[in-house]
Amino acid sequence: MQYTLRQIGFLFLLFLLTTSCKKKAKEILKEQPYAIVIHGGAGTILPENMSATQKEQYHTILEKAIKKGFFILEKGGTSLTAVQKTIQLLEDSPLFNAGKGAVFDNQGKNKMDASIMDGKTLNSGAVAGVSNIKNPINAARLVMDSTKYVLLFGKGAEIFAQQQGVKFEPDAYFYTKGRHESLLRVQKKERNVRGYSIDSKQKKLKHYGTVGAVALDKNGNIAAATSTGGLTNKKYGRIGDSPIIGAGTYANNKTCGVSSTGTGEYFIRTLAAHEVSNLIYYKNFSAKEAVKEVIHNQITSLGGDGGMIVLDKNGNIAWSFNTKGMYRAYKKSNGDEKIKMFKMVKDTI
Amino acid sequence: MQYTLRQIGFLFLLFLLTTSCKKKAKEILKEQPYAIVIHGGAGTILPENMSATQKEQYHTILEKAIKKGFFILEKGGTSLTAVQKTIQLLEDSPLFNAGKGAVFDNQGKNKMDASIMDGKTLNSGAVAGVSNIKNPINAARLVMDSTKYVLLFGKGAEIFAQQQGVKFEPDAYFYTKGRHESLLRVQKKERNVRGYSIDSKQKKLKHYGTVGAVALDKNGNIAAATSTGGLTNKKYGRIGDSPIIGAGTYANNKTCGVSSTGTGEYFIRTLAAHEVSNLIYYKNFSAKEAVKEVIHNQITSLGGDGGMIVLDKNGNIAWSFNTKGMYRAYKKSNGDEKIKMFKMVKDTI
Repeated sequence: MQYTLRQIGFLFLLFLLTTSCKKKAKEILKEQPYAIVIHGGAGTILPENMSATQKEQYHTILEKAIKKGFFILEKGGTSLTAVQKTIQLLEDSPLFNAGKGAVFDNQGKNKMDASIMDGKTLNSGAVAGVSNIKNPINAARLVMDSTKYVLLFGKGAEIFAQQQGVKFEPDAYFYTKGRHESLLRVQKKERNVRGYSIDSKQKKLKHYGTVGAVALDKNGNIAAATSTGGLTNKKYGRIGDSPIIGAGTYANNKTCGVSSTGTGEYFIRTLAAHEVSNLIYYKNFSAKEAVKEVIHNQITSLGGDGGMIVLDKNGNIAWSFNTKGMYRAYKKSNGDEKIKMFKMVKDTI
Repeated sequence: MQYTLRQIGFLFLLFLLTTSCKKKAKEILKEQPYAIVIHGGAGTILPENMSATQKEQYHTILEKAIKKGFFILEKGGTSLTAVQKTIQLLEDSPLFNAGKGAVFDNQGKNKMDASIMDGKTLNSGAVAGVSNIKNPINAARLVMDSTKYVLLFGKGAEIFAQQQGVKFEPDAYFYTKGRHESLLRVQKKERNVRGYSIDSKQKKLKHYGTVGAVALDKNGNIAAATSTGGLTNKKYGRIGDSPIIGAGTYANNKTCGVSSTGTGEYFIRTLAAHEVSNLIYYKNFSAKEAVKEVIHNQITSLGGDGGMIVLDKNGNIAWSFNTKGMYRAYKKSNGDEKIKMFKMVKDTI
């Protein structure tokens, strides 16, 4: 049997057409999920301690934040932009311990930390101990995008941010009455406590207001970001876990994205965020199993407290905390949405 | 057959005696190994670039350092003390980029980082961006022992160290002609380079002189420590991996102790030290396999350069680097001892 050149060409065209159709059909059937999950800190968040107005305020801002991040993802934006813009919104709210509303250190200054990580390239950027930067997360993003460094601290980081045109605000912008009263209260209590150690009794009464976000975009890229004012009355240039890659923030397209909140030292010592990723990668844990193991076994056994949010490469979301509550919310491309503050019967989703 | 109470007592005594003897014999046969391994930085360390005198100088100090650490372990000292005192000795030598001999940042200052970790408790202490502290490792140890913090930076860390009675030295103490010439050379070259990024060509010509030590003591406790001046001409308060737990330093009695050296950003992004430990714990890798995977796969694939030393809980030592050489040495309780500088045919032991 013989074919003319024309017949061969036609058959080839037909082949190309069916292949492309199959590919398209596959894409439609297995659409890349996208999602965003956020936290606004863990601590003694109890329904009986909050007024109806307060509950509504937190609910509103959490909803606004996930909607903002989700909208970016929906329009085809990157997970990096989604987490950065979502964190920015949370930093701008005085309700959280990040940006406006950051706690005061023992010098009466707001010293803030932030970090961001790109799960595709493992590129990361972070700033620690910076003052007067309106949105520390923007400075962290610029460290990642515009330098070969990962972590910049203090005055040097501020000079860098200034050169990059990041917005600065005077001390008054960051001042919130509640945070200042907390400082005075902690300092008064600490006068009765010897030395420089953190008073563990105070710790138990604390609201941690660190903010964090993890997103998965339409291209399957994961990003994570965290921002905080650290601990009230912190001393000696203490840096917590928020600006530390692998402790407070981690993202890896192979596994998941993570953001932590709590007493940072425990998350540093356990490399909490990296550990969640490794449990998924090396031990085939689900996101839920991994975060539960790290919070309720590794962190708890050291005496640490706090919580974490996780979003894996398949769009599964998990969170866990060993405190009374954690401000948390998510929105997924399949329509799922949750906004929570208090402890549920099952604290992992 | 019947036994008197006396006979039963005698038999029981005999049983106890043989059990205790067996236990003792077992202890003698399986004595807890102890060991110390150190590095003095990785880089373009080539035999043809070093004079005989230089080679001898490095050999002498590396030998002195492992002997010091080993002597502490032999006398029953803790691995924490062994690594601290060994690092102190290396910091006091102008040959390495740590303590005396630290490189200069772009302001012409020595800004040093150090960290230490206890594998038994996962307690850790670190300082970043400190000036004029004679032995930054001593400040890191005090952060671990005397505060509930892990990481202190800059002025705050210096104030803490001062209050703790840590020894300070004037700028002149840290000055070395070679390091200052390096700064001027790098700055001259950088005037032709746009912006703030690290010149990757310069990077290739560099000796990294970070120092690190890992020890396993007679009680089976592992400790790790790292100290550095960071990168020559570093800007904006850049912090590398040396003071970051899980990146530059990690210790866990369940697995191993690790200290890293190289372009810190790659070790931060891969959580290199924690990754080695996790490969041992979760994937049953040997120390040798784990360090090889992290350096030659994970770090190298990102374009990073440097090296690591590992000492596992059974006393096995491994090291690996993707640079031309790495100052490195170890001493074990079974009599093994090695002092190396250049690349061997097999770069992992």
